[in-house]
Amino acid sequence: MTEPNSSLTDGSAPDSSVLISSANAMLDAIRAVSVDGLGVTRPSYGAAEGAAHGILARFAQETDLVVRTDEALNTWVQLPGTHPDEPMIVTGSHLDSVRNGGNFDGAAGVVAGLLTLRELQRGPALARTVAVVAFRGEESAWFGTCYAGSRALVGHLEADMLASRSPESNLSLGEVMTSAGADMAKIEGQTPLVKIGSIGHFIEVHIEQGPDLLSQGVALGAVTGIRGNRRYSDIRWSGEFGHSGAVPRALRHDAVLGVSEWIQAIEQEWISEQQAGADLVVTSGILSTDPLRHGVTSIPGAVKTSLDMRSVEHATLQRFDRWVLGTAADIAGRRGLQVDFGTMIETAPAVIASEMVSMIKRVAKSLSQPIVSLPSGAGHDAAALASAGVDVGMIFVRNANGSHNPDEAMETSDLCAAVPVLVGVIRELGQV
Amino acid sequence: MTEPNSSLTDGSAPDSSVLISSANAMLDAIRAVSVDGLGVTRPSYGAAEGAAHGILARFAQETDLVVRTDEALNTWVQLPGTHPDEPMIVTGSHLDSVRNGGNFDGAAGVVAGLLTLRELQRGPALARTVAVVAFRGEESAWFGTCYAGSRALVGHLEADMLASRSPESNLSLGEVMTSAGADMAKIEGQTPLVKIGSIGHFIEVHIEQGPDLLSQGVALGAVTGIRGNRRYSDIRWSGEFGHSGAVPRALRHDAVLGVSEWIQAIEQEWISEQQAGADLVVTSGILSTDPLRHGVTSIPGAVKTSLDMRSVEHATLQRFDRWVLGTAADIAGRRGLQVDFGTMIETAPAVIASEMVSMIKRVAKSLSQPIVSLPSGAGHDAAALASAGVDVGMIFVRNANGSHNPDEAMETSDLCAAVPVLVGVIRELGQV
Repeated sequence: MTEPNSSLTDGSAPDSSVLISSANAMLDAIRAVSVDGLGVTRPSYGAAEGAAHGILARFAQETDLVVRTDEALNTWVQLPGTHPDEPMIVTGSHLDSVRNGGNFDGAAGVVAGLLTLRELQRGPALARTVAVVAFRGEESAWFGTCYAGSRALVGHLEADMLASRSPESNLSLGEVMTSAGADMAKIEGQTPLVKIGSIGHFIEVHIEQGPDLLSQGVALGAVTGIRGNRRYSDIRWSGEFGHSGAVPRALRHDAVLGVSEWIQAIEQEWISEQQAGADLVVTSGILSTDPLRHGVTSIPGAVKTSLDMRSVEHATLQRFDRWVLGTAADIAGRRGLQVDFGTMIETAPAVIASEMVSMIKRVAKSLSQPIVSLPSGAGHDAAALASAGVDVGMIFVRNANGSHNPDEAMETSDLCAAVPVLVGVIRELGQV
Repeated sequence: MTEPNSSLTDGSAPDSSVLISSANAMLDAIRAVSVDGLGVTRPSYGAAEGAAHGILARFAQETDLVVRTDEALNTWVQLPGTHPDEPMIVTGSHLDSVRNGGNFDGAAGVVAGLLTLRELQRGPALARTVAVVAFRGEESAWFGTCYAGSRALVGHLEADMLASRSPESNLSLGEVMTSAGADMAKIEGQTPLVKIGSIGHFIEVHIEQGPDLLSQGVALGAVTGIRGNRRYSDIRWSGEFGHSGAVPRALRHDAVLGVSEWIQAIEQEWISEQQAGADLVVTSGILSTDPLRHGVTSIPGAVKTSLDMRSVEHATLQRFDRWVLGTAADIAGRRGLQVDFGTMIETAPAVIASEMVSMIKRVAKSLSQPIVSLPSGAGHDAAALASAGVDVGMIFVRNANGSHNPDEAMETSDLCAAVPVLVGVIRELGQV
């Protein structure tokens, strides 16, 4: 990598073409260690993820930044402040990916963080220490739990999470972390790996995983909150199988008619909630008659489905969940069906302080950088830190085709538009 | 089998306890050759079906009735009339069953036919010849086509039907028929196995495959028509997969929301059709998101479903089918989805002359036997004969738990209530 010339020693905005070529160099190097034929694969605590951490360290060391690794193998790149006892300002994201994923989900935020740190390095010293963190294992949903590295950092990686096994390898998360070289003593003891108060702010740059910025024609978004969810993975509707020609309408107990009435009612209530100002998205992603018993000429007596409800507002989730259960019971009762919701899994929404949202927007405005506000529908490492009491902020970067697939498509120029904003925000926070 | 005493030589109603014990003897003998642990299995043109035909012949020969087999291996039991050139009156049904089926679907009608013939044998001679037929291969849907034996009889067993293979054995229907001993020359030439005009009437007794008679508390039904159908086996709705948390409602193309709106609209239109007096049943028996791509946290971008519409009225099927296609196109257009209906398969409704319905009801009334009118939702051998221009009638017998399963439950006393009605109808038709 060529050492970029910088125009930032005087505190002015970084040169965008230099930023773009630096970002591409890092992103390309990370991609090169993880191509899989379709997209990229960097499994949590696996070899390709480790190689990506090595690339981060190598790029950081080119400008003499201090690199260290914590017990959970998260990589830290630090720019010491003049007042080292003041709480750190941290930026960053993760370097792992799903199988056959894209190169930007996670890595983009780490790259933006390092570029930001290098710009800050060339400017006037800040009072507070600034760090870039590359978390391990954010995509550890392979093991039934996510954010392994950031949860470990704040002491929230619980015993049952460490014990959960990947259905593919049949190895537990704890076993894979140990094999990768993690020091498990503190992690298993749920002891935070840094004194929690020592991190004052965490600001994460991440690609948007939806199409909102693209549809609004804006490169950046200030995230207003990280949606929590209530989720039913295995809802069972049961009625009565029967001959499709021989049973009159009034004597049918058709599970497909019941579930479709319910899903329609959910959509209508969702629209009402939105009209009343609530933040809400609802998805029934799995829907299936019983493949062992269904048929073109059989009245369907069994349907399973799932429901994922997300909102930045806890009260909205609670209210909508109650409505969904009540409506299902009404419909089932009226149609002579049974409905069993199974287990509900809840993740609380993560709060992003409105001051952080306004600061990000104010700095962007001062740089004439268009930005809009939007919630994050997906979870992020920032949520793990927020749950430990850290003040968090997030900047989303425009991205096409969603994420978790090889087609995710971020323009490096959009990513680099986030760097001056992050530089500005950290400079403002970095004074004591 | 003990020779039952008969009170019918004088033309009066048969003794019901004698009928019941004769019917049970035959049904038990047929069951004994086909028990499979769960229910009964008598595959079309298979060994157990052949054994059941042998049992029919044995019982028929006990009272010196003439038994013969046609080229398609259908069994005929004949009671010659005094005017052998007059068109025959035929009753009967089939002796095969689905895998793990019940003992009564088909066999009940053959047993009722033979008991009827024996009662007629003891009464005054009729002008017209009366025959009981036991068809082969009515459940030949295993080979993708049904009514093999009755279609062969009327010369409607087409080359592609004979060539179609059972997915289980990979044998074609033609191969299985040949192995069983059928004489394929006429069948392959689509030459009727009897001169079509030589069958004047066909009256089939069959268990009801729905719960209508049971819910009305009546043992017998006079069938008003055999529902035809229009059927789409593989309808594909496609939209756009996406992250369940990250995509706002307005930017979603959710195939599950589209298909559930469509199914709800279908149910409402079905209710309107019924309120306007149409005969109609509608079933979406298969409904499934794509198991290779769906997930609890994915907006469903692909759903497949089926639709089976049945009516005794051709115009109702045509009108409803048009409405269904138009409504799907509207919904898909509005939601940014695509919908592909694939191939439509149509079976025309079989007409049952209203004179046949009134005759059956009139005879029942004269015997103080309660009877109601109802359509047949399922197809029957009678439909094959109706399509060849034979005047058909059907009498349904009350049955619990549907058919095509081991739990089908007909009372022999209900079956035997059909015998005096059939005797009366045939006596009325049997005069020249």
